Amino acid sequence: MACLPIFAAVPKRPLILVCNDDGITAPGIRNLVEIAGESGEVVVVAPDSPQSGMGHAITIGAPLRITEEKIFPGVKSYSCTGTPVDCVKLATGIILDRKPDLLVSGINHGSNYSISVVYSGTLSAAMEGAIEGIPSIGFSLCDYDWNADFQGSRDVAALLIERALSRRMPDGTLLNVNIPALPAKDLCGIKVTRQAIGRWEEQFDKRMDPQGRDYFWLTGQFVQEDEGEDTDTWALKNGFVSVCPVEFDLTAHHSIAKLNDWNLKLPIRSDHK
Amino acid sequence: MACLPIFAAVPKRPLILVCNDDGITAPGIRNLVEIAGESGEVVVVAPDSPQSGMGHAITIGAPLRITEEKIFPGVKSYSCTGTPVDCVKLATGIILDRKPDLLVSGINHGSNYSISVVYSGTLSAAMEGAIEGIPSIGFSLCDYDWNADFQGSRDVAALLIERALSRRMPDGTLLNVNIPALPAKDLCGIKVTRQAIGRWEEQFDKRMDPQGRDYFWLTGQFVQEDEGEDTDTWALKNGFVSVCPVEFDLTAHHSIAKLNDWNLKLPIRSDHK
Repeated sequence: MACLPIFAAVPKRPLILVCNDDGITAPGIRNLVEIAGESGEVVVVAPDSPQSGMGHAITIGAPLRITEEKIFPGVKSYSCTGTPVDCVKLATGIILDRKPDLLVSGINHGSNYSISVVYSGTLSAAMEGAIEGIPSIGFSLCDYDWNADFQGSRDVAALLIERALSRRMPDGTLLNVNIPALPAKDLCGIKVTRQAIGRWEEQFDKRMDPQGRDYFWLTGQFVQEDEGEDTDTWALKNGFVSVCPVEFDLTAHHSIAKLNDWNLKLPIRSDHK
Repeated sequence: MACLPIFAAVPKRPLILVCNDDGITAPGIRNLVEIAGESGEVVVVAPDSPQSGMGHAITIGAPLRITEEKIFPGVKSYSCTGTPVDCVKLATGIILDRKPDLLVSGINHGSNYSISVVYSGTLSAAMEGAIEGIPSIGFSLCDYDWNADFQGSRDVAALLIERALSRRMPDGTLLNVNIPALPAKDLCGIKVTRQAIGRWEEQFDKRMDPQGRDYFWLTGQFVQEDEGEDTDTWALKNGFVSVCPVEFDLTAHHSIAKLNDWNLKLPIRSDHK
């Protein structure tokens, strides 16, 4: 039998897709690209403009464009005209030639705890990744300052990227990671948490334009309705990083039995088959 | 003791807020306004243009405008420049002088089953209502035709509006109601369901503009990954209306113990306090 040549398999580095919602030029994503680059081959696909508050929006009424950028030395990067979720879809559908081993989104300039998860573009990019079967993590620093200190967030991202690549992400789950606005040395540790019950109470700033027509700026204040010590808000208030597992099966399973008691019967129409 | 005059309390009719994502001129919302008007005092606050696929987006980078409309005879109605969620926030924050007893969203022109719940503006309006403590229901007819037959959907909406006003909506729950594209007499009944596991597989339609630059239209195909007979997709495929309870606590509670095994410890910095 002829000897077959033996090739030493060169293990491919893990492919890490980096997204965000603050736009491709934000300092937060630059920090995340640098940290992710220590663990894998990084490709960046991010919005060309800020997309905060876009939730899980997708663009179906307008076409999308992709532009290759030269922003991160040695890292392939692309800006897109759409939402954070569009970016993930364009990355997996058009740009990448294999499925990423990990998706990381952020680091967001500002918190995404409690109910904010449903409004957050950062988290929605991670949720889109999870829906597509990619282990996915969204990172948010509780500091809106463009010049915030990212060292604590970098430590947290390095640790979680390592764990997500070496362990199995629980099925149907993405991670919502929030980091308190503290120097790295002052972080008290990491807590696995649940989403605190709370909501944003709207306040509208009413103004008048030069033509005399009213317009409104949406603002709001977070209202905490949860005193639990196992929540994301408790962790952050007490100096801990919050790692909250999030799912995209939105079924309220505990409500199914109650609704079956509603006796839901359609009217019988005289012409019923 | 002097006699106090006794006033017979005049019971207020329930206040029903009607929203949608197809825009205030869509036939679907007109049908919902008519049905809701049989059970309460209706106020319509809906987008001034189609907002399909907006998910839970809110408008924070641009101001919002409200215009009073004369579209529905005898019904107060307002169009807004923002997303479906903005409409709910403007309704409860600015337009209404009391909290609605019920929010109904739709009737959407097209289905919102399985994972579509996270992309749907119709459902996000209902979710925003639920977050604000208002019993909320999103209705979707599985027919994209602007001239679709809404009779079955009207029967379903009448029944669920009556139940939601007379019974207690389970805590933290909204309803995602999908109606098959069938004549009313052919609907097989109503099933309380769970969200089927599935996803949209992206397909991008690539084109070139007159300047020679590529652009992409997002399209996709639903991929079912769930053979259960208790799902929304099963119900619809078999001629039943699906009533799926949805929650806005996105915590993956079943994943908390698994993540606690990840041994998440931050590096100890030499300057640690």
